[in-house]
This record gives sequence, C-alpha cells and structure tokens, in this order.
Amino acid sequence: MMSTPPLRVAMIGHGFMGAAHSQAWRVAPRFFDLPLQPEMTLVVGRSGAAESAERWGWADAASDWRAAIERDDIDLVDIVTPGDTHAEIAIAALEAGKHVLCEKPLANAVEEAERMAAAAQAAEQRGVRAMCGFSYRRVPAVQQLRRLVAEGVLGELREVRAQYLQDWLSDASGPMTWRLDKALAGSGALGDIGAHIIDMSQFVAGDALTRVTGTLETFVRERPLLAPIQPARQKGLGGTASDQKGTVTVDDAAWFTGRFASGAVGAFEATRYATGRKNALRLELSGDRGALAFDLERMNELEYYDATAPADRLGFRRVQVTEPEHPYTGNWWPTGHGLGYEHAFSHQVVDLVRDIAAERTPRPSFADGLQVQRVLDAVERSAAKGSAWTDIPTSTEDQLSTEVGR
Amino acid sequence: MMSTPPLRVAMIGHGFMGAAHSQAWRVAPRFFDLPLQPEMTLVVGRSGAAESAERWGWADAASDWRAAIERDDIDLVDIVTPGDTHAEIAIAALEAGKHVLCEKPLANAVEEAERMAAAAQAAEQRGVRAMCGFSYRRVPAVQQLRRLVAEGVLGELREVRAQYLQDWLSDASGPMTWRLDKALAGSGALGDIGAHIIDMSQFVAGDALTRVTGTLETFVRERPLLAPIQPARQKGLGGTASDQKGTVTVDDAAWFTGRFASGAVGAFEATRYATGRKNALRLELSGDRGALAFDLERMNELEYYDATAPADRLGFRRVQVTEPEHPYTGNWWPTGHGLGYEHAFSHQVVDLVRDIAAERTPRPSFADGLQVQRVLDAVERSAAKGSAWTDIPTSTEDQLSTEVGR
Amino acid sequence: MMSTPPLRVAMIGHGFMGAAHSQAWRVAPRFFDLPLQPEMTLVVGRSGAAESAERWGWADAASDWRAAIERDDIDLVDIVTPGDTHAEIAIAALEAGKHVLCEKPLANAVEEAERMAAAAQAAEQRGVRAMCGFSYRRVPAVQQLRRLVAEGVLGELREVRAQYLQDWLSDASGPMTWRLDKALAGSGALGDIGAHIIDMSQFVAGDALTRVTGTLETFVRERPLLAPIQPARQKGLGGTASDQKGTVTVDDAAWFTGRFASGAVGAFEATRYATGRKNALRLELSGDRGALAFDLERMNELEYYDATAPADRLGFRRVQVTEPEHPYTGNWWPTGHGLGYEHAFSHQVVDLVRDIAAERTPRPSFADGLQVQRVLDAVERSAAKGSAWTDIPTSTEDQLSTEVGR
Amino acid sequence: MMSTPPLRVAMIGHGFMGAAHSQAWRVAPRFFDLPLQPEMTLVVGRSGAAESAERWGWADAASDWRAAIERDDIDLVDIVTPGDTHAEIAIAALEAGKHVLCEKPLANAVEEAERMAAAAQAAEQRGVRAMCGFSYRRVPAVQQLRRLVAEGVLGELREVRAQYLQDWLSDASGPMTWRLDKALAGSGALGDIGAHIIDMSQFVAGDALTRVTGTLETFVRERPLLAPIQPARQKGLGGTASDQKGTVTVDDAAWFTGRFASGAVGAFEATRYATGRKNALRLELSGDRGALAFDLERMNELEYYDATAPADRLGFRRVQVTEPEHPYTGNWWPTGHGLGYEHAFSHQVVDLVRDIAAERTPRPSFADGLQVQRVLDAVERSAAKGSAWTDIPTSTEDQLSTEVGR
Repeated sequence: MMSTPPLRVAMIGHGFMGAAHSQAWRVAPRFFDLPLQPEMTLVVGRSGAAESAERWGWADAASDWRAAIERDDIDLVDIVTPGDTHAEIAIAALEAGKHVLCEKPLANAVEEAERMAAAAQAAEQRGVRAMCGFSYRRVPAVQQLRRLVAEGVLGELREVRAQYLQDWLSDASGPMTWRLDKALAGSGALGDIGAHIIDMSQFVAGDALTRVTGTLETFVRERPLLAPIQPARQKGLGGTASDQKGTVTVDDAAWFTGRFASGAVGAFEATRYATGRKNALRLELSGDRGALAFDLERMNELEYYDATAPADRLGFRRVQVTEPEHPYTGNWWPTGHGLGYEHAFSHQVVDLVRDIAAERTPRPSFADGLQVQRVLDAVERSAAKGSAWTDIPTSTEDQLSTEVGR
Repeated sequence: MMSTPPLRVAMIGHGFMGAAHSQAWRVAPRFFDLPLQPEMTLVVGRSGAAESAERWGWADAASDWRAAIERDDIDLVDIVTPGDTHAEIAIAALEAGKHVLCEKPLANAVEEAERMAAAAQAAEQRGVRAMCGFSYRRVPAVQQLRRLVAEGVLGELREVRAQYLQDWLSDASGPMTWRLDKALAGSGALGDIGAHIIDMSQFVAGDALTRVTGTLETFVRERPLLAPIQPARQKGLGGTASDQKGTVTVDDAAWFTGRFASGAVGAFEATRYATGRKNALRLELSGDRGALAFDLERMNELEYYDATAPADRLGFRRVQVTEPEHPYTGNWWPTGHGLGYEHAFSHQVVDLVRDIAAERTPRPSFADGLQVQRVLDAVERSAAKGSAWTDIPTSTEDQLSTEVGR
Repeated sequence: MMSTPPLRVAMIGHGFMGAAHSQAWRVAPRFFDLPLQPEMTLVVGRSGAAESAERWGWADAASDWRAAIERDDIDLVDIVTPGDTHAEIAIAALEAGKHVLCEKPLANAVEEAERMAAAAQAAEQRGVRAMCGFSYRRVPAVQQLRRLVAEGVLGELREVRAQYLQDWLSDASGPMTWRLDKALAGSGALGDIGAHIIDMSQFVAGDALTRVTGTLETFVRERPLLAPIQPARQKGLGGTASDQKGTVTVDDAAWFTGRFASGAVGAFEATRYATGRKNALRLELSGDRGALAFDLERMNELEYYDATAPADRLGFRRVQVTEPEHPYTGNWWPTGHGLGYEHAFSHQVVDLVRDIAAERTPRPSFADGLQVQRVLDAVERSAAKGSAWTDIPTSTEDQLSTEVGR
Repeated sequence: MMSTPPLRVAMIGHGFMGAAHSQAWRVAPRFFDLPLQPEMTLVVGRSGAAESAERWGWADAASDWRAAIERDDIDLVDIVTPGDTHAEIAIAALEAGKHVLCEKPLANAVEEAERMAAAAQAAEQRGVRAMCGFSYRRVPAVQQLRRLVAEGVLGELREVRAQYLQDWLSDASGPMTWRLDKALAGSGALGDIGAHIIDMSQFVAGDALTRVTGTLETFVRERPLLAPIQPARQKGLGGTASDQKGTVTVDDAAWFTGRFASGAVGAFEATRYATGRKNALRLELSGDRGALAFDLERMNELEYYDATAPADRLGFRRVQVTEPEHPYTGNWWPTGHGLGYEHAFSHQVVDLVRDIAAERTPRPSFADGLQVQRVLDAVERSAAKGSAWTDIPTSTEDQLSTEVGR
C-alpha cells in the first residue's frame, strides 16, 4: 500500500458526521485495495479541533477552514459542517484545485446548490472531482437493489413507496437543537431525511422526479431551549433542556407525491414523529415483473419479489446481502456477517478514491445533489401553495444527474 | 336457541360477498348466543338464485329484489349487490320497515348515500335499524386496536399511515371486470379499497377526516374485455380475456393526505398495482405515548409500541389477538388458534343482531357510510383540481358519525 | 347437492373438538362439491348431548356411543372423545360396517392402536374406510409444502427441525386438567402436540422415522385441582383452581432426535412451557437444493428457499398460501384472504368424503396413526432408558404408512 | 489519549480472525476512553506476516510466535491461530508475564484447556490477565439480554433453545478445508459454532450445564480436496476444489439436550447444513415471568416477552438495541444506527483493556473457556455412547466459571 501515491485529506467539521468520515478514511484502505493512499492530514473545527485530531487520528488541526484551502499538502477537502456553510467552502476548495466530498444536503438553498454544481462542472474540466455524500447509496443492499433494477427485474416501474420514519421529536418536551432552526438547518425532516429518500429512490429506480405535490407540518411549535452547558460527546439528536422556550421554524414531517420521468408515481413521507420507528428508511418499488423493498432498520437485508415465478410459490424473499456475490461485502467478513452504519462511509471513500484515480466523475455528483435540492424546494413551494403540483426545473446538467446507478 | 324469536333474513345479491354473508348467517348463531335466531329465508339474484339458495342454504329464491320488500316474512334485508343499486334497495327496505345490512361502499355517489342516511335516520324513529358493512372493523385485532386507542395508549395522536396494497391489476394483460367500469363500480381502487382504510383509520382513531389533498392514477387505460363465457364460480377478481379491448374508466391507484379533526395528519395509499402485496391493508397510528400497527395479511396479529416503557426495552410487540381476553375470539377456539377472513362477517352479524334486539343504532351507521363517501368524493374533487386541499362537508348527522368505536 | 347420496354422520364426543368437527360437517359441503351429502344425524355425549345437538346442529342426541353403532341410519362415526376410548368405539364401528374418522392421537397405547389398525385393514376389505384426524395436514400451506417436497425442490433431505411450542402451563399456579392425568390423556406434551410434529414432518418429508433418542421432563409436579364447578363453555386449556393439590403424571415437555429412513436427522421439541409462544408448530426441512419452513402461528404462509437461484438473490421467500393455485384455497375467498384454524377440519371432511365415494383408502390411515403412536412410544422408552437410541418397530402395514403425501 | 500508558500488543495469526482483531485494536480507542493506549506492535504469521503488518497496520512482523514472547516490549499476546496451537502459545505468554487474549475455542482438547486454565489461574496471582475470546458476548443485544436476565425478567428459567444454523457445507461438492480435518480443527460444527451457543446460553442464563445427551452426524464423508493454489484473500469458508478426494473427519452437525444447574433444560443444535441460514445463531430463554430471544442474523435486535403485562396486550417485542441506554451503543452512532459483526471485537478489546487496568479478572476467563470445552467433550462422549446422558465434570475453578454475566 505504501507504494501507492498519497491522497491527503482535510476534513472540515467534527461532529458525529466527522466521526463517521474519520472512521471511513482510517478503515477503507485496510479492507479495500485503493489506487491512492488516503492520509488524514488536517481536521478543521471552530473549537476543539486539536482534541478531535487526537481522538479521530488526524495529523494536524486548524480552526479556520481556509487553512485547508491554503495548504498545498491537501488534495481533498471533506466537508461535514452544517448545510449553510457548504457552498462557500466547497466552491473555494474546487477553485483551489482540491477534490471535494461534501455531506448531504448539498446546500440549504437551491441557489447555493446551483453555484456549487456549476463550480463542480468547471472543476471537472481541470480534473478536479466533487462528490455529494449520500452515503446510504453505498449500503450493500442498496447497491444490490440498484443492480437488480438495472438488470430489469422490475419490468415497467409503476410505483415507489419511500418513507423515512424517526421518532426523536415525538416527545414534545424534548429541547430545541440547531436542526429545528431554519436559519441553520435550512429545512426540517424534509431536508434532513426526506433528502435521503429522494436520492435513494431516484438512484435505485434510475429515474428522476419531475413534479410533486406536498404537505409540511410542524406538530410542536415551541420547545425548551437547550441548556447552555451540554454533556460531553453529545451526539446531535438529544440534549438537556433549559427553562426557556424557543420556536421551531422547520417542518416536523413532510408528505409528498411525485411523478417520475418514466411515468411512475412515488409516495413519500419523512417524519420525526413516527413513534417507535428509530431509523426506518423504507423503500419499495413495484413493477409489472417484480418488486423490491428495503428497510434501513434491517440494513443487511433486502426483499425481492419475482412476479415471473410459478404462481404457487410467489413471495417476497428476504435476501441477506452479506455474501461474496454482493457489492462491497466480500471485502469484509465471511458469509452471513452483517455490516453496520459506518461501513457505507467506507464504501463512499473507496468509490471516491477510485474515481479520482480513474479520472471519472464521482456519483452522486454535485449536479445530483442539486437535483435533490430542487425536489426539496419544489415540495416546499407546493406546500406553500396548498399542495399544488409543482414542476421540478431541469437543465442540461440535470440530464446528467438522471444517469444514476453506475 | 329455538326459544329465541326469529330474525328472518333476505339476501339481495349472491356473488362472492353473498358467500361470505351466507356463511356468517349460518355460523354466527352456532358460536355466539344471540337474542334473535337468524333464519336464512330468501336469496335474490337476477339469475341462478335457486342454485345459490341450494348452495348457500337459503330456504327460498327470487329474481327480483322487490320480492324481499313485499314479503311479510322478511325482517332484515342484507344487500350485497354492486354499489349502484344500494340506494334504491336499501331505502325501499327501510321504508317497508325492514332492517338493512348494506355492504360497503354505502353507495356509488354522495347524493345516493345522503338519501340513504336520511332514510336510515327516519327509520330509526320507527325502530328500524341500518348498518353499513365495513366488516374489517370486526376483525378481532382491529377491535383490539380500537380498545387500546380508547384507553389512551397513544396519548396525543399525531400521524396515521394507512395503505391498502393489492396487485391483481399489475399484469397489464389481465382483463376488464365490472370493477374497472365507472358506471358500475363508481370508483376504482379509491372507492373499493380506499374506503376500507378511511373507515378503519377513522374508527380506530376515533377521529374524522376534515380535509384532503389527493391524486389518482390509471396506469393501464385499455385492457382486454372479458370473454363472454367465464369459468363457473369465478371469484370476482380474475377472468378469461377476449380479443377485444375496453377502456378502464376508474382509478388504478389513489394517494391522499388528510387532516383529522384532532389535528393529526394521515397519509393514505390505495392501489391494485403493489406487486407482491395480496391484501396488505396496513394501518399505523403514532401518538406521543405509543403507536399501534396492523396488517390484514397477518390479521390475527397487531403491533403495539408503548413509549412509556423503560428506555432499554422499548419495542413494537407482536400481539397475537387469539386469546380469550380479546374481542370475539373466546367464542371460537382455544388460545393461539387463528381466525380467517370470513369470521369478521360472523362478528358483524352478531353485533347487528344484538343491536336490533337491544334497540340500539348499529355502527357503522349509514351516516358513517355517508361520511366515508364524502371523504372519497373530496379526494376525487381534489385530484381533479390539481391536488388542491378540499374540505369534507359536515352536517348534524356527521357529528354522530364521528362517535366511532363502540 | 340434494341429488347426491347422503352420508349420515354420528359424532361421539362434544368438547371443543366436537365444535370444530361440527363446523366442518356443516360448512364443507357449502364450499366444495362433494360426491356424498353429509347429514349431521346424531351426536353422542355422556351428559348434555341434547344441548350440543341444538347448539351444533345435530338432528338427534344420545348418551351412549353404542347407539351410533346400533342405528342403521348411521354411515360414518366421527370420534372426538379422549384417547382412552378410541379403540373400543372405532373397532366396534368398523365391525358394524361404519366408516370412521378418529381424532388424533389414534389411541393412548400402542397395543390399542395396533388393534385399531388391524380392524381398519380388515374393514378395508369390506369397503369400510377409516381415517385418523391429523387435521393440520389439511392446512393449505402444509399441503403446499408436501407438494413442493414431492416435486423435488429440497433435493436430498438432510435435516428436519420441528417444534410445537405452547405456554399454557408456564404459570405453575394453573390448575390440573384431564390433559395432565396420564390415566386419561395417556401422555402429556409428547402425545398431545408432539404427535402433530411427528405426523406433519413425516407427511411433508414423505419419510418415516426409524429410531429416536429422547428426553421427557415434568417441570411442575403438583398443581391445584380444578374446582368442582367450572364456568360454562370452558374451552379445555383453562379452568378455575380449588385449594387442593393434584399430581401431574404426564410430561410437560419432550425433546427428541430421530433418524429418518432416508438418513435425514430430525430435531424435535414439544413443550407447554415456551413462554409467549401460543401455538407455534414450526417445521423446517433442509435439503441440498432448498429449504422449506412453516409456523402455525402464521398458518397462511410458508417459507421457501431455492438454493439453485442466482447467488446474489438467494433468500427465504414468504409465500402467502391464499391463492387459487394453492390447495383448497380457491374454493374459499379471493386472492390474499386468509383462512383460520377450523378450515383444516373442513378440508379433512372433503378429502374423507371423496375417498369414501371413490373407494380409496383415506390418509392418514389408522396404520399411519399407529406409526405415530410407535414413534411416541419409542420416545418414551428412550427417555426411560437414559435417552438410549430406540428403534421404532416396523411391519407390513407400516410399509403402507410411509407412503405419505397423496 | 497520548498521556495514557501504552499497552503493546502482539497478534499471533493473521487469517480472517486477524483482520477482525486488528480492526478492534485500531478502532476501539477512537470510540471509547481507555485507561491504556493499545499499540499494534507486532504481528506473527508463518508466512506473509510482513504483508499482513502493512495491510492491518502492525508496526512489525515475525514468523515465529516465540518472538512475541521473547520481546520485552510486548504487554499482551492476542492469539488468533487454529485451536491446536493455543495451549502452547498461551501458556508460554502467561508464564512470560504477558496478558493473553485467546480466540475461542480455548483449545482442541480438554486436557489442553485444563492446562491453560491452570496457567491463567497462576498468572492471576502475578497480576497477569487472560481472556477467552467469545466475542459474541459483546454484541450489544447479547449484553442487554444478560442485563435483563440478571434483573429477573425471566422469573424461574425453564427452557433454553439454542441453535447455530449455517449452510456452507450444504453443497456436497464444496471442497475440504482445515475446518473439516479433526487433526487441525479438533471438532466440526460442534466445536466451531456449538461452542458459541454453549457459551452464550450459559452467559445469558447465568447458569451452567451439568449433563448432556448428544448426537453427531457427518452427512458428507468425502469431499474434493482444495486445489493447491487458492485465490488471494480467501475468507476461510470457501475455496477452489481439486480432482482428488479427502475424508471429512469431523461432525457436520450436532444436536444435544442439556440440564442446567438450576434444573432448566436446554435444546441445542449446531449445523453447517441448514440450507438458507447463513449465520443464524439463535437463542431463546423461557421462564415463568417472561422470555427473551435473539438471532445473530438480526444482531441489532432482541425480542422480549413480558408475561406479567395485561393479558390483552402480551407479545414479543422487537427491541432495537441501538439506543444510548444499551450496552456500548452510545459510544458509536445516534439512535437507530446499527452495528456490524466486528464491533463485538472492539467491545472485547475495551473490556479487556479496562479489566487489565483495573486489575480485574476478565471474563470469559480461561476457566470459562475450559468449562465450554468440557461441555463439548461431554457431548462427544455421549454421542459415542449412543446418546447416553453424560456428566460434565466440575472443579473449584468451575465454580468460578458459573459466575458469568458481569
């Protein structure tokens, strides 16, 4: 491995996403043969970066992201900050000739995402690569779903069902977090987890949403503010409440119905109030020859229904996506041994590094990320207009973005 | 049993619903102590009624439903014909002083349902009873869901998820049936199976929908006509195709989002194209203290999540609704022995007969059936207006109809 | 139907099994075309037979089973009494030229079962038929399992897993019932529910056990006696306790491992102490080309694993055995509509009546029932000898009994 | 972290277990605060150790395990070689004052395990620690099971069901591997995976097996030998066949019934022929107050049945063991995010390092490992004696070994 050229990485941000990305950069080269050797060179955080460097194994630390841009010994900038900062950092990095991995959502606003996609397209011309981090695409079962769809097992796609059900806001006495503040988070359940089901359904279907009708709801409009001092290593979704109240300015839940370019219809729900559902990202695709289903709560499995089987033995089969024949899994453990949440981040690193070395456009591209942002925006605009059907703008770049599923 | 007064029944119609209702009238008195003894007096069918009488055990047969109205020895008229005939028969029966059990949907049009509800209300004054046959309310697990909600296990209800997923139209070469012809069926998936999820969700929640936004879709607009001669005992959903084509004039699938009076939001889907799903009527209710779920494909089970349990042992529990403590089940078999589809019809007969004897209004009443019809109508109107939010009209009678769940 | 010749039935016994059999005789002819028309002529019970006749719809009642033998107008005797009475009644009925349906277990002792099988074999020569009532064979999913095995989907059978898990004795304060008294019940969990997994596994596998090693256990050796007066319509597994104690003389649970004639190995467990398992009769067969599984708690489903499918999409598929292509189901309801516990009894009646009319030997025959009894006996003898491997005697008649699975 | 004292580790062996242990040593300190800082100092392998050092991140490499014993800069020896080498290496390491982590099974023979346990006991006196690597104890769901049992949720334990179902030998044309050679592997399914269900059931129950009756079977006695040249990075369970045949000298499957000290009865099955089951380590414990179940194929879940809940809402609940309240999980990802196979190895490292620093005896101790070996041996002896019940010898050390479940 030491004979491979290095890929020197700076990570901007160091919350729980930083932990996941650090683990990916550390672990991926141990289990996959990579054409470039990632080096964990620099971590950037406004406070506590040095401690994060030590904990997560980065060689150096800085408090301003511009340090990563300015240093010559950085080849790739990995952005895991909140969405409102993505555009500025990513564009600067690309313009400085650094590859970029940017966490989803690509940005908090379409206009920002458009500028990012344009910057990525320009950078492409110079051999500089950009990827949007929809890591769930790299869950082996999700890749396997895509493979099966691409092979044609669905026949003509008619229906998509996609839900992302969580319940961490179900208790109305739970405190405010930055995720409930529109200024910081941009959006609520829609942008945070709705983005995942949009990206995953389009990726797996190999099809793009063209119009939507949607509804947003905020069930609990006031919540206690977070106490000023929080427990160490707080993991993003919890926290200790104070006596003061704050206003929730994002949606708690979103429901939308969309039309795909192929004519298929998708029903979507994203909520943080589905009591008892912890991380139920569910997808089901129904075609005239078969159906496929997935639930992130059982992420090592998929379900496949082959409608062409003999009529007396039709049924959804539970495929354990843990075998050598499945995407990525052969590099890990023997048959039947499950992977966890963070493995998808390692696979993301693997694919990105290989794309950079092969001079290919990584996917999901920034154009893909922009397209998701446009769907989110169309849902918001539809909801604001009494659920009127709202078109999702397309552009030349978008044509690219529907070529999902490599 | 012989000392109990008789309840002489005429059944109008004799398709597969007739088989289910006949079984209920025959079996219910064997397993439940009833205050009136049902007698299977007359079956009416435009053709083949005599054969049906023999097969299903009715004492007499006629070809015109008016025979049932005119005969003095009929106490109750059980209507299992297609929806376009319900209003005329039911109103005539009620006016003739006969109790009525009318299959869902109450009618094909709101106006018809309104007249029926008015007739039922008038008949009530004279001690004549009317029930709308949403038999799935009488599945033991559904009654148990309602009991748990009424007891307060959900806390504040926030979200309802309801799907009725079937796949019998998934094959585009399958032939037309009367169910795909708007003139006869009134509606497609929406009216046929969407009606069930509307009724069941309102019943279990004890809450009424007040407005909706919806979308309808017909995926396959032309299908082969049925061959003139069909196999004997054809069961309603299949059939043999001819060479000629007919036009599908109803919806294949419907998606709608609704607001309940309590403020809860419901997401609904009814489709006949969910490949691999045979009879998946699924309901999930999420509140701040718990959640409940049901799937008709596993009709002897429910799922219950108690959010107030200790944090290290929270989880959806699978309750087998087959125990003596559960509704209806103690009258059948020992612990752990499942019931089937037709048992709900027996329970419907049990409750109806007991209500008649006790001089109570049976539920679901015709007003309840009308309310479901108004929801269906609002979905259709919303879909026709680009999914605009559409109010569901209320009236004095509707106040009654929200008192679900006895 | 009225033109078909009658089959006049007398039922001996009228507990909960009597209810199930009555329902079968009443309902089967409504849903299946039968060559003989069952007539519910006589019910026999030592007390309360007249009430049972009225409740369950039998034309006449008697207190002594000999009445059924003596009457000329009885064609078939249906025996649902406890096992200690089976031999005397069945042999008398067969000798009197009456067909016999005898509930499982065939008898409480091998010697009795041998005499019954001999009587059945002699009666065969005179055109008189005998069937042992292992009704679970007639659950559609179980028949479908047998069909798939007969078709060869398992390849070479290696392993059988069979469990019958119940929990109604889990509470040590629950009272004694006749089922815990060896003098009446003959055996405990082994004979009652172990008999089912022996019969079902042999039937589905098309293979016979030849030797076993087994263990029996009685966890709770003393229980309160039943109070003298019990609630009306007590359903056999419960009851009200008195202050006095009685001794449990049967096994609470049994575990045994057996060798099939083919060389396959079976692991069996029958218990009434599997807390939370209400009626979990589970079967799994593993061969080199596939596997099949079943759980009576989800009796409308089976699971099928096709090991010859492409390696990236292998998985157990959940087949809903509710379709027209499946055994029996097309006679009942449309696609996706589940059946319940009692339907298997109707199917048993259907097959028996057709066999009688076709002059065929019904299966399971008394020889089949005897063979199950010999397996049970071998398990008991093994357990008494410190789990030593114990052969199951075979005979000419047994050769017949391994031709299971028509 | 750098201020903590180092713990310098040498790993002996570098197959797939070496990959898992390397990952654990690398990752554990990133997610858990440890009192000693593990340093990956040396890896030993008879060939290819240098490559493994580079791939898995060990500072140095050697070809003879004695190098690890002799070097002063090694504090802990981690043994992941086949079982026939464990005793020699472990005893030498302990005598040299090095802590030892030894993979399960502790040894291939009881006599070896006895010597190892004695060596560990002696080393204890000098502050040198030894742990046997039954990593599945450290799956969060398994720890949570143990917590619940210790809290008393089962009441009086009656029954244990434990199965380890794999299918990688189901295809009779699959080649020989060292795991099928008694000289190397010591035992087949029994020792390899049967050991896991013995350890896990005793650990979770907090109870020890005292006697067993068992059966072993080798379904396929001859298999193709492995071709001399195998694909790179072969993962232990597969391989390419040659034309020559070899003899399988170990068991393919094992079934045994055991008595626990408490009086509970356990039914065990370990097989590599359970077609379609990839890694189904299943455990169920039934007591008079509740039941608990687990399946390694869904390793982030457990099932809990509380028999003391109201009778109308009893049911097995599926607990997602992914919450901050659960063992280990709070150190990883937010609520609802699953872990994979290798995380249990990280938890093993965490507990071992903490025990060493706290001067506690790690569990499972070598005495625990010896006790499992004695159970395996008793099963083999029982099988050789026609399944006769066979006692499991106890000793003073064994008393220790039943104190499971810290």
